[in-house]
Amino acid sequence: MTFAQTPPPPYTAVIFTSTRSAGDNGYEVMSARMVELAAQQPGFLGVESARDGLGITVSYWADESAAAAWKQVTQHVIAQKRGRDVWYDDYQVRVATVVRSYGPDGLR
Amino acid sequence: MTFAQTPPPPYTAVIFTSTRSAGDNGYEVMSARMVELAAQQPGFLGVESARDGLGITVSYWADESAAAAWKQVTQHVIAQKRGRDVWYDDYQVRVATVVRSYGPDGLR
Repeated sequence: MTFAQTPPPPYTAVIFTSTRSAGDNGYEVMSARMVELAAQQPGFLGVESARDGLGITVSYWADESAAAAWKQVTQHVIAQKRGRDVWYDDYQVRVATVVRSYGPDGLR
Repeated sequence: MTFAQTPPPPYTAVIFTSTRSAGDNGYEVMSARMVELAAQQPGFLGVESARDGLGITVSYWADESAAAAWKQVTQHVIAQKRGRDVWYDDYQVRVATVVRSYGPDGLR
């Protein structure tokens, strides 16, 4: 997992923070499949992910409607239900509009 | 590290994605100090952090001006310089306005 290569703002970030329940229960396979599937959606810009206890996944989208459309994709809806029922102890989703972005060399 | 307890949107999220250089070089101590110091700033709402290779830290602020003021706090300016020079191979900062937030039980 590495940096998402996003365009200049504005664009949409979906910040997904979670704690996992015990056991894999098919999580790793489905998680990888969801990243692949997300990458095929219109308006997908990239995704960044890290977990050590708390997990944080930020997916980036061209706009809010692209992010909202991904939320409704059938296989993703099924994964979301399994997430609520089995994989996650708790989670929080925050939808945000990125207004500024910079790295060590300035704006990008 | 656990979930940030944020109020209903809108508020500001600063998404800091990074890769570390080799060695600690004072990073862990300074990192903990910066979290403590951030928590004392006006408009601080919370912070969430995870790292496994890629590191993602999201800090939450009442508004953009609160986030911008934290960027200018002297000890934080010093830490930012040391981050650029020593601790991070690369990083990206994205400032975003959270417009919607929900968990497994709906809006919160």
